[in-house]
Amino acid sequence: MNRAAILAVGSELLTPSRVDTNSLFITEQLNLLGVEVAFKTIVGDDRDELATVLRHALGRVDVVICCGGLGPTDDDVTREVVAGVMRRALLEDESITARIRKRFESRGMQMPEINRRQAMVPVGALVLDNTNGTAPGLWIEDGARAVALLPGPPRELKPMMERLVQGPLKARTGHQVLGRRVIRITGRSESHTEEAVRSLYAEWTAMATPISATILASLGQIELHLSARAGSHETVAAVLGEATRDVSGVLGLDVYSTDGRPLEAVLGDLLVARALRVAVAESCTGGLVTSRLTDVPGSSQYVDRAVVAYANDAKVSLLGVPQALIDQHGAVSEPVAVAMATGIRTRAKVDIGVGVTGIAGPGGGSPEKPVGTVAIAAATAAATRSRLFRFVGEREMVKFQASQAALDMVRRMLLQ
Amino acid sequence: MNRAAILAVGSELLTPSRVDTNSLFITEQLNLLGVEVAFKTIVGDDRDELATVLRHALGRVDVVICCGGLGPTDDDVTREVVAGVMRRALLEDESITARIRKRFESRGMQMPEINRRQAMVPVGALVLDNTNGTAPGLWIEDGARAVALLPGPPRELKPMMERLVQGPLKARTGHQVLGRRVIRITGRSESHTEEAVRSLYAEWTAMATPISATILASLGQIELHLSARAGSHETVAAVLGEATRDVSGVLGLDVYSTDGRPLEAVLGDLLVARALRVAVAESCTGGLVTSRLTDVPGSSQYVDRAVVAYANDAKVSLLGVPQALIDQHGAVSEPVAVAMATGIRTRAKVDIGVGVTGIAGPGGGSPEKPVGTVAIAAATAAATRSRLFRFVGEREMVKFQASQAALDMVRRMLLQ
Repeated sequence: MNRAAILAVGSELLTPSRVDTNSLFITEQLNLLGVEVAFKTIVGDDRDELATVLRHALGRVDVVICCGGLGPTDDDVTREVVAGVMRRALLEDESITARIRKRFESRGMQMPEINRRQAMVPVGALVLDNTNGTAPGLWIEDGARAVALLPGPPRELKPMMERLVQGPLKARTGHQVLGRRVIRITGRSESHTEEAVRSLYAEWTAMATPISATILASLGQIELHLSARAGSHETVAAVLGEATRDVSGVLGLDVYSTDGRPLEAVLGDLLVARALRVAVAESCTGGLVTSRLTDVPGSSQYVDRAVVAYANDAKVSLLGVPQALIDQHGAVSEPVAVAMATGIRTRAKVDIGVGVTGIAGPGGGSPEKPVGTVAIAAATAAATRSRLFRFVGEREMVKFQASQAALDMVRRMLLQ
Repeated sequence: MNRAAILAVGSELLTPSRVDTNSLFITEQLNLLGVEVAFKTIVGDDRDELATVLRHALGRVDVVICCGGLGPTDDDVTREVVAGVMRRALLEDESITARIRKRFESRGMQMPEINRRQAMVPVGALVLDNTNGTAPGLWIEDGARAVALLPGPPRELKPMMERLVQGPLKARTGHQVLGRRVIRITGRSESHTEEAVRSLYAEWTAMATPISATILASLGQIELHLSARAGSHETVAAVLGEATRDVSGVLGLDVYSTDGRPLEAVLGDLLVARALRVAVAESCTGGLVTSRLTDVPGSSQYVDRAVVAYANDAKVSLLGVPQALIDQHGAVSEPVAVAMATGIRTRAKVDIGVGVTGIAGPGGGSPEKPVGTVAIAAATAAATRSRLFRFVGEREMVKFQASQAALDMVRRMLLQ
């Protein structure tokens, strides 16, 4: 048993405002046993649709985890549909009814009669106690396949899923473990990353413990996801560790994280390790660089202050940027970014100053300096560094990419 | 055609760390045409799995929207799998290749040969231009059914989906319209909101065009989602407009937005309308208040500057907060927040100053001032206002709630 499907049941999950998140926890738990999720399907509170999807899933995977739709009301259909598809009669389990009744009474309430639906159990099913709610979960085995029914509320689902993984699920899975590693990369496009690492793919798939890899582009970074399956956590960790070193060997400093840390945490750890403090002068990013830096617990150790100089005269009065420099090069220019970085560095009396000035859009662009033009600088006592970027996208995307580039510039400066 | 399925393609969406969110926007767009989503399935970059799921979907719904897997690399399989299932040959469209080549050249890069895969088009498919990326979308009709292929990155997918709704999708759907309205609320709990609006529910369900309502709690706000279905946009808009006015009548100033605008945009519009300028002094929010304010296009009209005074001496030197005040009340206190707000206001010579000081955690708490304690103040020439909050949750949650409370304090000050 090593392939699973997750079915999330609930009409609210098919609206534009709600997304299924239970499946993330379920996936994590399944992966601990080496079980991979082949697909996830989200269906509404609809008997026909759920039955069809369940039949499809039972034809494709060894274990189906259903979550949601175990409540007492008419639109909670999971229990009945699963029993129907698996051809099991539903019988009331009096001991469950008694437990639910007691739960209500302990709160001074009478059990509504509709809650008896939650005590209906398909013949042959294992009942999974619900320590945080009324609806018990169910585990139904059918030859080589099995179906779990879990309640939708996360605090009811999570402990139940954990016990399933320790018990019946573990008993039916092999002794395989699935491990993952996410390698995060800046300063390269998706295709250039792929070209660089492609030669590794062939090696990885030919290994005794093969590794599969996926490249993912997101805003301001590329992610390389590696996964491997083996008999022990140690083997998986060793194999993925070696592959990660291979990637770092090829991509060098472009790899900024191999353990899931975001860029601001990687930079934060570097600053802590070297006992350096930083101050930031931001214009177009409007505080985002500093907000990201201070998202990291303990960042008060190394973040001293920041100035968001949105108006030009704030650049002059708060950062000491010479007005003549702005007149000569324009507010969005490398010399002004450098003056902002050195200005905040000396005023805050810190080791590193960062300056960011640009045009986030949608207005403010010109043919020479279109929207997305951002000048970024970093300054230490020993050196300054600056670069003019052209980012693509809407205002918030330009802001994010600029913050990413600023954090990355400091990281590279410290590592080179 | 009024039933759709959404297939999100990408192995990363089957890991414990990523969730599909594209389907929310796609659902919203489909709903505009009265098309409901029957189910959503998430599959990995796996030819066999995707083919099976696609066949299942084509047997159940009129239109299938696939997103993701249109990239240039080997693990981008959507184009080929859909062509296979629909029995269409894939041919290179030279005009697409030329466009992609040009896009690379405009950035001074050469097109990698693998990008030619993105120019492959199933025979008879309509090509959907990608204004924000290389991969074009595709629309393939097959009798009464149709399949759309959209790229995964939201900024590429969204404009394409919007054009699909205006064009080929609209041409194939009926004349029902599903409308939704999101009412955003601050300063009330979920249950207090429910209690206040409950009496409206009965009226809404009894109307000729009934309205269904859902209350959703999210960080720092409550959302009330209304939806109605009718023969025309006008009817839907009229019915939802009236219900929205009912809610505002009951909840008053606690309703901050009825048209989807986030709080920072609502506040921005107020500042523009009254020609007021603002400056912000932040401590625990680390720049987040100002970053949110400057997420709004045109915010340079009313955001002058901000100071992130993370270290205490920055509060003194940059904002003129008296050291004695900090010694007496502590850095996290209403008097210090007020001094920060008035300090930044007078230094920046603007109409409104905002001060935020608190303990975001996980460290820094004490029995009297636990993690989550945040003092917020707003100051104008005429008045100051301040309040001490106790927010619950982790560091980033405290930061967000504090930024929400600060923006909301200024909004209420302007409206009262």
